[in-house]
Amino acid sequence: MRLAVYGYGNLGRGVELAAAANPDIEITGVFTRRDPAALQTVTGVPVYGADTILEHKDEIDVVVICGGSATDLPFMTPALAENFCVVDSFDTHANIPAHFAAVNEAAEKAGTTALISGGWDPGMFSLSRLYANAILPEGSDYTFWGRGVSQGHSDAIRRIPGVKDARQYTVPVPEALEAVRSGSRPELTTRQKHRRECWVVAEDGADLAAIEKAIVTMPNYFDEYDTTVTFITEEELQRDHAGLPHGGFVIHTGTTGANGEHTHTIEYRLTLDSNPEFTGSVLAALARAVDRIHRRGRTGCLTVFDVAPADLSPLSGEELRAHLL
Amino acid sequence: MRLAVYGYGNLGRGVELAAAANPDIEITGVFTRRDPAALQTVTGVPVYGADTILEHKDEIDVVVICGGSATDLPFMTPALAENFCVVDSFDTHANIPAHFAAVNEAAEKAGTTALISGGWDPGMFSLSRLYANAILPEGSDYTFWGRGVSQGHSDAIRRIPGVKDARQYTVPVPEALEAVRSGSRPELTTRQKHRRECWVVAEDGADLAAIEKAIVTMPNYFDEYDTTVTFITEEELQRDHAGLPHGGFVIHTGTTGANGEHTHTIEYRLTLDSNPEFTGSVLAALARAVDRIHRRGRTGCLTVFDVAPADLSPLSGEELRAHLL
Repeated sequence: MRLAVYGYGNLGRGVELAAAANPDIEITGVFTRRDPAALQTVTGVPVYGADTILEHKDEIDVVVICGGSATDLPFMTPALAENFCVVDSFDTHANIPAHFAAVNEAAEKAGTTALISGGWDPGMFSLSRLYANAILPEGSDYTFWGRGVSQGHSDAIRRIPGVKDARQYTVPVPEALEAVRSGSRPELTTRQKHRRECWVVAEDGADLAAIEKAIVTMPNYFDEYDTTVTFITEEELQRDHAGLPHGGFVIHTGTTGANGEHTHTIEYRLTLDSNPEFTGSVLAALARAVDRIHRRGRTGCLTVFDVAPADLSPLSGEELRAHLL
Repeated sequence: MRLAVYGYGNLGRGVELAAAANPDIEITGVFTRRDPAALQTVTGVPVYGADTILEHKDEIDVVVICGGSATDLPFMTPALAENFCVVDSFDTHANIPAHFAAVNEAAEKAGTTALISGGWDPGMFSLSRLYANAILPEGSDYTFWGRGVSQGHSDAIRRIPGVKDARQYTVPVPEALEAVRSGSRPELTTRQKHRRECWVVAEDGADLAAIEKAIVTMPNYFDEYDTTVTFITEEELQRDHAGLPHGGFVIHTGTTGANGEHTHTIEYRLTLDSNPEFTGSVLAALARAVDRIHRRGRTGCLTVFDVAPADLSPLSGEELRAHLL
């Protein structure tokens, strides 16, 4: 299976590293909008200009598109689906139906196979929600994120005047997790579910009180949360907060019985040292599935919900039944 | 969707109750090898003799076979697959390949669709193992069961002379769980992973020391475990140990990165008040999928690995993408 990586940031590198861990997957090229000569890949994969990808069509089974959901993927994924089977990690939940429609139209017309919104949320967390709801329809879902770095919230802090750098962690509130696990199906506010931890490097002479106030009152990002702000040095940020850990919990509690007398809890939990490397690993497995599904003749847009689990694995049906069932 | 329940013990009742929670699923009959007149179903479903099921062929889309894996399912599932789409919960892991082959042959010949080994292990736990291995091939799986009642081990204790009744709980060892979650990929012995708790009602005048010795030294069942035996009264057993709780953990830890420097943990956990009602709920959702897959023209034997998650849900693709992705 020959993958192309389109866009080479943290996520693109994650896909490249995932391919190196899977003997049946080869990366035949990294495609970038930057100067290809200025890029060095981790495993020595050749780098080409993004606008030359059609010249490499015969070397590519699936393009894994590693762009951003806000401005890149809404046009990149439909455009690339006109010529390639594609996988993306589009994660703006509210816009998934519109993105699906655009990609599906392009893929149906071209006879290609696309999968959108791969990764862990959307992605593996979505699968957990679906399975749990199908098994226990009398129930409630709870999704918690963290402890992990939110890049969007870190960027929002960096835009505040006087801020040199920042790292924001989303942290699930332990009491909320325990209340959910108990099966009592509590109604939880935004503030009750997560708190936000901000580690901030200020410019010399900046007004720290003003920065803190700007953070904790920022609409949508912080105002509905209990937020802590800690000022640290640039050295401390590099030393203690260089990684991109993340993770979270999907917890579904539901009841069965003639009178709902039995409670069940289904919990799916991820603890990730590197968000982009884990996401890249999910995308590589999804690309394997897209290639197989395409070879069977199915075209159009899919999501993780449409992929039979066996198609994600390099093992045969016999091997899966003998060793993993 | 019209289901038949074939075999009416705890699991059959669990399927019946699951159908009551799903508006798109109806149970048109319970089929029993006992005297149908002597059975009363929980929700008033009609009861028929097992040998009359062919007379009801037009009223049944899928038969959910609720027999035992040791002696019932190896012949029941292939035989019923000659006339019906079927789902079973065959759980003798070592014999799954042979059972699959027998059911597949019958279903292919008859043009029916069968799914074997549904439930939670095999079933949901198997799915967790497959997904985790496909995402993180450089990793290790650990499955823990409990805290929950093992019917097989409870039965084994009841066969000891002087034992009137017994309940055996399988309990995961907390230290082993923590070692696994740490990502250190420990090698664990049987004794290190689980311990066994036995609650025993002895006959009047029985030799308690002899019973305890017979339990803790019993080959395969108890000799490789740390086992505790506590003698209680019949009233205490009824009061404190009447339920059939179960559950467990599938934990996969694996690494990514150029030098395996990032560790990730994927954990799937079930905490179930009623093992048979949860298993019945899984089988009902799988029966929904089998009916859909059959209507699309696919025949033969499947497992959970072959079912696209969307087929388990009563929601449409649009609804799933809008609300659960």
